[in-house]
Amino acid sequence: MNPSEENITHRFFKHLNTFVTVEEKDFPHILSYFNTVKLSKKEIAVRAGGKCNTKYFVLSGCLHMFFTDEKGADRTIQFALENWWLTDALALHHQTNTDFNIQAVEDSEVLEIETDNHDLLLEAYPQMEKYFRMMYQIAYGASVKRMYYIFNYSKEEIFFSFREQFPEFVQRVPQYLIATYLGLTPEYLSKLRAKKVS
Amino acid sequence: MNPSEENITHRFFKHLNTFVTVEEKDFPHILSYFNTVKLSKKEIAVRAGGKCNTKYFVLSGCLHMFFTDEKGADRTIQFALENWWLTDALALHHQTNTDFNIQAVEDSEVLEIETDNHDLLLEAYPQMEKYFRMMYQIAYGASVKRMYYIFNYSKEEIFFSFREQFPEFVQRVPQYLIATYLGLTPEYLSKLRAKKVS
Repeated sequence: MNPSEENITHRFFKHLNTFVTVEEKDFPHILSYFNTVKLSKKEIAVRAGGKCNTKYFVLSGCLHMFFTDEKGADRTIQFALENWWLTDALALHHQTNTDFNIQAVEDSEVLEIETDNHDLLLEAYPQMEKYFRMMYQIAYGASVKRMYYIFNYSKEEIFFSFREQFPEFVQRVPQYLIATYLGLTPEYLSKLRAKKVS
Repeated sequence: MNPSEENITHRFFKHLNTFVTVEEKDFPHILSYFNTVKLSKKEIAVRAGGKCNTKYFVLSGCLHMFFTDEKGADRTIQFALENWWLTDALALHHQTNTDFNIQAVEDSEVLEIETDNHDLLLEAYPQMEKYFRMMYQIAYGASVKRMYYIFNYSKEEIFFSFREQFPEFVQRVPQYLIATYLGLTPEYLSKLRAKKVS
């Protein structure tokens, strides 16, 4: 492992220790269950219709999960920036094919872990079971909260609230992706952005 | 514990063993971390604006989680029938106030567990950590899938697909609750039901 790789994977060590306790001496072994992978911008990691055996942890860059709707338009259903996981959790659990693609939005570096290794890791390190329980708990809670926004607020309110909560994200990620994630058309999002300049 | 209580809580034992291994001899101790509670139809277990320290497992009956929207209408965001959990996972994790109410849709019997007991249980029984990781993984995956339906299908398609997947549920639960859960008005749902009789 060269110094820059060591440096970037150390982010995962720091991240883990904000939720559970992982000893420095155990980390290289924990890391050995993962692959470190570089994805170029627009590279597809998982393709809709195929298996989804892998979870992705973003070390740098940004991934999104999207599907192609009945009119042929791509629609983002989830984003993952640094320190976030992305996978089709249901397809992973049931070992079924996924409806979703996972793609790099920017040049990205990720840790990937396949189901078999994931199960072995969780057996070997019980704190990783706890860690993933917390990750899924937060992801589930956030997903319900997102539904709450969709049901309770106008599209305009959703956009402005999203921009207030995640200003860097709105600057960084292409607007047409944010539009589909928020359930807006790119044209409508452009209008909103023109309407109020922060 | 009287025989009928023993009988109903045994459902939880059977349910646990479809995901992890729990020994019969350990089950009474596991159960001691929970309270068995009867809720009357329409009884509120958690009130919006307050703390949400508790998770509910439905032994019999049905709960829902709802909020009152800006127009004053109640909107269901999640249901839980038998063998399902209900809580505001994000408020529970961050120990913040919840935006949601949790209420019995029918006379129900539930197991409830508070955060402190939950943490003690998971320390004492690592398989319960695994169990909750799986519960949250499935709940998160299902929530993303629901978003996929909302984004990809018309309201009419969502209703018919939902009825096909959960026919008993549609028979059992009041239509005005299903309507808000699917993002429809009760009037629109009535029209849909009249349109195609299964």
